[in-house]
Amino acid sequence: MIKTASNTTAPTQFVQANGQSYAYRRFGNGSGLPLLYLQHFTGTLDNWDPAVTDPLAAGRDVILFDNAGVGRSTGDVPQTIAGMAGHAIAFLDGLGIRTCDVIGYSLGGMVALQMVQDRPSILRRMILVGTAPRGGEDIMHLEKPSLAKHLQDPANRGYDVLKKIFFTSSAAGQAAGEAFIRRLSQRKDDLDPPSGPKVAGAQIAAFREWETPKGERFAELRTIRHPTLVVNGVHDEMIPVHNSYRLSENLPNAVLLTYPDAGHGSMFQYPESFTKHAAAFLKSDAESAAF
Amino acid sequence: MIKTASNTTAPTQFVQANGQSYAYRRFGNGSGLPLLYLQHFTGTLDNWDPAVTDPLAAGRDVILFDNAGVGRSTGDVPQTIAGMAGHAIAFLDGLGIRTCDVIGYSLGGMVALQMVQDRPSILRRMILVGTAPRGGEDIMHLEKPSLAKHLQDPANRGYDVLKKIFFTSSAAGQAAGEAFIRRLSQRKDDLDPPSGPKVAGAQIAAFREWETPKGERFAELRTIRHPTLVVNGVHDEMIPVHNSYRLSENLPNAVLLTYPDAGHGSMFQYPESFTKHAAAFLKSDAESAAF
Repeated sequence: MIKTASNTTAPTQFVQANGQSYAYRRFGNGSGLPLLYLQHFTGTLDNWDPAVTDPLAAGRDVILFDNAGVGRSTGDVPQTIAGMAGHAIAFLDGLGIRTCDVIGYSLGGMVALQMVQDRPSILRRMILVGTAPRGGEDIMHLEKPSLAKHLQDPANRGYDVLKKIFFTSSAAGQAAGEAFIRRLSQRKDDLDPPSGPKVAGAQIAAFREWETPKGERFAELRTIRHPTLVVNGVHDEMIPVHNSYRLSENLPNAVLLTYPDAGHGSMFQYPESFTKHAAAFLKSDAESAAF
Repeated sequence: MIKTASNTTAPTQFVQANGQSYAYRRFGNGSGLPLLYLQHFTGTLDNWDPAVTDPLAAGRDVILFDNAGVGRSTGDVPQTIAGMAGHAIAFLDGLGIRTCDVIGYSLGGMVALQMVQDRPSILRRMILVGTAPRGGEDIMHLEKPSLAKHLQDPANRGYDVLKKIFFTSSAAGQAAGEAFIRRLSQRKDDLDPPSGPKVAGAQIAAFREWETPKGERFAELRTIRHPTLVVNGVHDEMIPVHNSYRLSENLPNAVLLTYPDAGHGSMFQYPESFTKHAAAFLKSDAESAAF
């Protein structure tokens, strides 16, 4: 039996589909449906913490994915969530995957919500972490003083800024942030290029478009019957927790789990708890999201 | 080895303390700390669903308790939560229990929050279901049309009204309500007298007093470091879920779990899921509430 691979060592692969070349990593084993990871603002394949990918790769294949224009995927970064959802579906089509589970984190959660509306059969169960519905409020306003002070501080180089914006300022929060950065830094080769201002600009445009309701606010959520697990930190400054409340109140089949003393990176702060709950949720084949 | 007892069969016992005779039931086995159940508005020992008591009695003693003036406990029902917390602490003192875990449901959650402020050492871990902090809003306003229509309907006799006010109106919600009533009805002997208007009136007065903040709203929650699990249904009409949000945002060490298509009786609607999470939470001895 092959030892379960890890995002620290899994090779980057490429699939041609939709006129693009999409970069991805796939590893794991077991009989569960593949689990697609959809990444946050400016994140690449290298931003996936092995502590939230590797434990779930015991039981299923985990698939990490660079959307168009990010990392080593070709094409332009779409300026809408709908555009990103189209690429993600084309990518799965290219791999021959008809149905999978998904962890959508932040921007990636919005992409998952759009995918499930565009093609409901593409997803079975959704885990939505630190994200927001269309029409959500206060989504990724990096100009807010609470975020700008960290983003504009020249002392915060590379991953260091993530320690400030993904984690709370408590001793426990900052210690968890340091552990997170250490885990990300374990991967040394076959790295993606970091995202630049072009990626950031297009993704910010997509956030602004997503903040605008279409018709009755949140009405589209009520049509999504897929079992969903919504996760957030109660002190998320990037996409505040009230957006997770609106998701779990309006999605008809969603369990909400929030973590204390945690911000946008709640799953990286409590990876053992998060992956334990995620595994139990994904293992269930019940109609209800309750697990 | 004795088979784990059940609230369907456990005998009612009495302890003399604080000049009162307190009625209780105690059953279970295992090495865990005793788990005290604090009951909802007008509820007696007979309102504890065996599906949420019995599974947790495998691993620890479960203790169900009639507060003063309720069921077969002597004394007057206090018109404040603080008065009820005083009786609950006196009851534990009478049993010689210095520290225990607690499930506080609705009114009982408020009592638990007051107990932990009055004597922090009396509780180790708290599970707060369908409840509200001091200064919470829309607590048990039975005059609201959404509740009054069920409470004033003469067709809703005995437990039937609980099916309407604890569960959602969906087919799944009402089916869960029927199963809940069937489980409550399994106990045939050694029953408590149902609560009358005197109990209800005093408890409503206590809710009104609890709705009034003392000083800065929610400030007292920030001093409670006890690991806490907050649970609610997203469609709770009796104590709406925003009260659970305020708890998990202001208690420094609280995980929140909400259930879809569920009202005030979320734990009775999903007893398997609830007791599984509660058992995992109670089993942990970590400083953090994350489990």
